[in-house]
Amino acid sequence: MPDLYDVAAIGNAIVDVIAPATDAFLTSEDLAKGAMTLIDEARAERLYAKMAAGVEASGGSAANTIAGVASLGGRAAFIGKVADDQLGKVFAHDMRAIGAGFDTPPLKGGPATARSLINVTPEGQRTMATFLGASNSLTADDVDVKLIECSKIIYLEGYLFDPPEARAAFAKAAALARSNGRLLAFTLSDPFVVDRHRAALLEFIETQVDVLFANHSEVTSLFETDDFDVALAAVRDLPLIGAVTRSEKGSVIVGNGEIHMIDAFPVEKVIDTTGAGDQYAAGFLLGLAQDRDLGDCGRLGALAAGEVITHYGPRPQVSLKDLAAANGL
Amino acid sequence: MPDLYDVAAIGNAIVDVIAPATDAFLTSEDLAKGAMTLIDEARAERLYAKMAAGVEASGGSAANTIAGVASLGGRAAFIGKVADDQLGKVFAHDMRAIGAGFDTPPLKGGPATARSLINVTPEGQRTMATFLGASNSLTADDVDVKLIECSKIIYLEGYLFDPPEARAAFAKAAALARSNGRLLAFTLSDPFVVDRHRAALLEFIETQVDVLFANHSEVTSLFETDDFDVALAAVRDLPLIGAVTRSEKGSVIVGNGEIHMIDAFPVEKVIDTTGAGDQYAAGFLLGLAQDRDLGDCGRLGALAAGEVITHYGPRPQVSLKDLAAANGL
Repeated sequence: MPDLYDVAAIGNAIVDVIAPATDAFLTSEDLAKGAMTLIDEARAERLYAKMAAGVEASGGSAANTIAGVASLGGRAAFIGKVADDQLGKVFAHDMRAIGAGFDTPPLKGGPATARSLINVTPEGQRTMATFLGASNSLTADDVDVKLIECSKIIYLEGYLFDPPEARAAFAKAAALARSNGRLLAFTLSDPFVVDRHRAALLEFIETQVDVLFANHSEVTSLFETDDFDVALAAVRDLPLIGAVTRSEKGSVIVGNGEIHMIDAFPVEKVIDTTGAGDQYAAGFLLGLAQDRDLGDCGRLGALAAGEVITHYGPRPQVSLKDLAAANGL
Repeated sequence: MPDLYDVAAIGNAIVDVIAPATDAFLTSEDLAKGAMTLIDEARAERLYAKMAAGVEASGGSAANTIAGVASLGGRAAFIGKVADDQLGKVFAHDMRAIGAGFDTPPLKGGPATARSLINVTPEGQRTMATFLGASNSLTADDVDVKLIECSKIIYLEGYLFDPPEARAAFAKAAALARSNGRLLAFTLSDPFVVDRHRAALLEFIETQVDVLFANHSEVTSLFETDDFDVALAAVRDLPLIGAVTRSEKGSVIVGNGEIHMIDAFPVEKVIDTTGAGDQYAAGFLLGLAQDRDLGDCGRLGALAAGEVITHYGPRPQVSLKDLAAANGL
């Protein structure tokens, strides 16, 4: 199969609603700061009614990564489920407008397009409450065999490890990746996801995954330790490349017998950290697809994450390709 | 009647779709740069399909002004028509979330909530293509008599002078304002609106309007002259307060036998001029409602406009009340 895409991703198709909030608001709404809480439609409506005025922008973790890959000049495609409604049309438009392939048929007659209500506290930290809606209805039938076969890297987001049908879609994608000699990349997405599915996740990672993304709280949750060094050592023992992000402390990359400490990209002021991890993955994965060394993959990830935290919204607002070139990457 | 509101506005209820674009794109899509073009739903879908990835944010000229009045600490309310759909819910949420009254019943079974497709060229200039949808179905029945009676200033946007039913709503609001001793404020909105309805507009302005907002191209269109000074003299001859905005050259205020030249508020970099005129009106109107002198009304308008052009989106992203206080206003 020819390499038509650098990265194809499977993830939740979500529209973000981003608004400023206070810590007191998070507490009163029982939202764990910095994490993602799943909510049903009724709670989404109650919470939305109490939130400040916001802006809407296409989101979804792996979908944001695909937007980053495209902005870096990579060829990218996305698989995810929207509903046949206004927000679903916004999501599909934004995916195609950045030049990414997106042909998953919208869900008819089911719940609405997924929304993530994102409250951003003054220091720029984002706290998400997500109504998964149609995005939760992804099935193995939505996994386009040809698309997987002709993509260098298949990227899956941990959030979709929850619904059994979507997990079956992941298994199908992983088997296709393996049989076609493609790299399978995976992000843990969220410490609560890890906590709910630790054993199944560990088995999936050990047997299927070539590239693992995690942040501090996810990787320590995965290995049930408070000690970051213990968790990092456990990642090193896995037969894969691991990229562990640590917010302003940068990232650590382990794999191929190497270890790289990557600094965070310097930014003047953090406005909204939504999408930081997603954009890190975008830079890292496109670097890998371009056969760059692991250190440069990490630096490309740091650069992409650095751009996205300087403005509201989870996707790049400038050409990351130009930004990378201006920074010698 | 008690003064429950500083400003009540009647206008189009629109959700903006804001995306970056080039001048060549505007030309190829036959869009007049810097102006507003009305488009039908079919053209809106074709244009949207060609636009870059964007963000969605509640907009609408007078609605943006109401958001600015609220951000400045004023009491504000809005009358405008959304549909019973996702974007209509976004619009209503954002209006209520800023503390503004908004109780116009949504349109059932008609066209969708209005969308303005806003292409922003690299220097920050916005060019709008608007599908008016449900917002065009505003009627005199939507004009809440009690609301008009207890608002110090009633503000109408020229865009709604087009549909006859909405013009009847304006006539009802104007008569209520007059009989209750309220100020009627009006913005010309767009040179094409002026061109289509010059005679009717002039009669409405001369007989009903106490405060008139216009920019350079609108006011020269109104008086059919290329000479700004001629147009300004014609405004001075009207029995009203006139505030004429001139982008980076600031604004000129005439009325009560006075003339004030107001500098533009200094900003570091213009990102997106969407909402500049709307926020100028917000500052000016709240100043008037607070019985400030005309110069300070203009300075408050300039400050509000200066904030909104430094970011994507037509409404303030910081507390204008705090910003005004920090600038001695």
